[in-house]
Amino acid sequence: MKRSRPRVEAPTLTSRDTATAALRVDLGELVPASEVFLGHCAALHLTFIEQLTSAMSNAPRVADKDELARVAGVVLTRYQALTAEIERLALDKTDIMQPHLQGVEEFERRTQGFAWHEQVASAHVTVGFLTEFWLGLATGLPSDLRARVTAALTTGDVHTPLHRILERAIAANPALSSRLALWSRRLVGDTILQARSGLIVHNAHSRSEAQLEPAFTELIAEHTRRMDRLGLTA
Amino acid sequence: MKRSRPRVEAPTLTSRDTATAALRVDLGELVPASEVFLGHCAALHLTFIEQLTSAMSNAPRVADKDELARVAGVVLTRYQALTAEIERLALDKTDIMQPHLQGVEEFERRTQGFAWHEQVASAHVTVGFLTEFWLGLATGLPSDLRARVTAALTTGDVHTPLHRILERAIAANPALSSRLALWSRRLVGDTILQARSGLIVHNAHSRSEAQLEPAFTELIAEHTRRMDRLGLTA
Repeated sequence: MKRSRPRVEAPTLTSRDTATAALRVDLGELVPASEVFLGHCAALHLTFIEQLTSAMSNAPRVADKDELARVAGVVLTRYQALTAEIERLALDKTDIMQPHLQGVEEFERRTQGFAWHEQVASAHVTVGFLTEFWLGLATGLPSDLRARVTAALTTGDVHTPLHRILERAIAANPALSSRLALWSRRLVGDTILQARSGLIVHNAHSRSEAQLEPAFTELIAEHTRRMDRLGLTA
Repeated sequence: MKRSRPRVEAPTLTSRDTATAALRVDLGELVPASEVFLGHCAALHLTFIEQLTSAMSNAPRVADKDELARVAGVVLTRYQALTAEIERLALDKTDIMQPHLQGVEEFERRTQGFAWHEQVASAHVTVGFLTEFWLGLATGLPSDLRARVTAALTTGDVHTPLHRILERAIAANPALSSRLALWSRRLVGDTILQARSGLIVHNAHSRSEAQLEPAFTELIAEHTRRMDRLGLTA
């Protein structure tokens, strides 16, 4: 899942000047307490499972249903690995996850497409972006936990099958291309807000929202590449 | 998953006379061709996954969501084991499953509850009944396939967690008891029809629908016991 994220400038940056580079924030610096990280990330994975099985349910063809079931299985395995970490810390899953439920469910409602291919695009955009995000954030966790969380979040492959399904849907109906490009662009704002809600901004850093923006630079660049690979304008 | 089904009379039978016993049909005699069995059973498992993740999505508490996610994971593992058998026979999943999609989706629509606890009850009743049914039917498959299908359908535990969730919901709100009893009774007819659609009636047997009924005797008895254990009248 692209863990060796190359440091590519976001399309919104006009120059690669050193001032920008200096502003770039390491996501790991903004990691919240381990139990907040785990509770939020696990709760988010429940909504990924819902998005994927909803798309599976609405997909008309067995080939797509089958592939979406397998992707849901991968996300479920990651969810179970995350909750295993909560248990390893002798914390209660319910206590840890419940505070994040309302936020992630609101996010799910906002990003839930109507047609099945929109739902697949939603999963592709949000699981892709947010998994990269949590992997970046995880670099700030205590090293044992970081290793296990990184392993959990990189289990299996979500990107390739979702890419393949969308590619197939677009090939069968090229008019989908502009619709899915619009839809995917529509998702990015909510996805960034969801990521933003997972950060803790230490007072010592005194960073303004504008200064936090560079933290998302690479994630947006990776999103743009994901869309490019599908021939969609991000 | 109760594979050693005791031969118990159905509650609808008024006596244990030998005439009734003679009428009892071994489900294994009514098994269709292996690819029809596998295609139908795999397609049905997709709808089970949908039912369970829909209940997971609607459940308000993390504890229930978490448990439902794990049950969905068990059913997903069974689904993958069934599709592995389709591939082992060098058959195409899509070709094999597609003919059964409309029927199982219609079944899912009819048995999909509104409230989350109705959805859990739906999964409990339909997965319970139909897994027993397919296990009975599987006794008529070629022996290698029978062993692997039996292993697939008995992987993990679906019954215990669904029972526990319903028990918890009823304990928290005893008024649910009669509502869930009614709802579960409402499901049995559609569930039997779904099972019926998986049988092949060999002409050589010349059995009428009425004669097939005893094949379901044990399944209905097991359903009744499942409801009893929840304190619900079947």
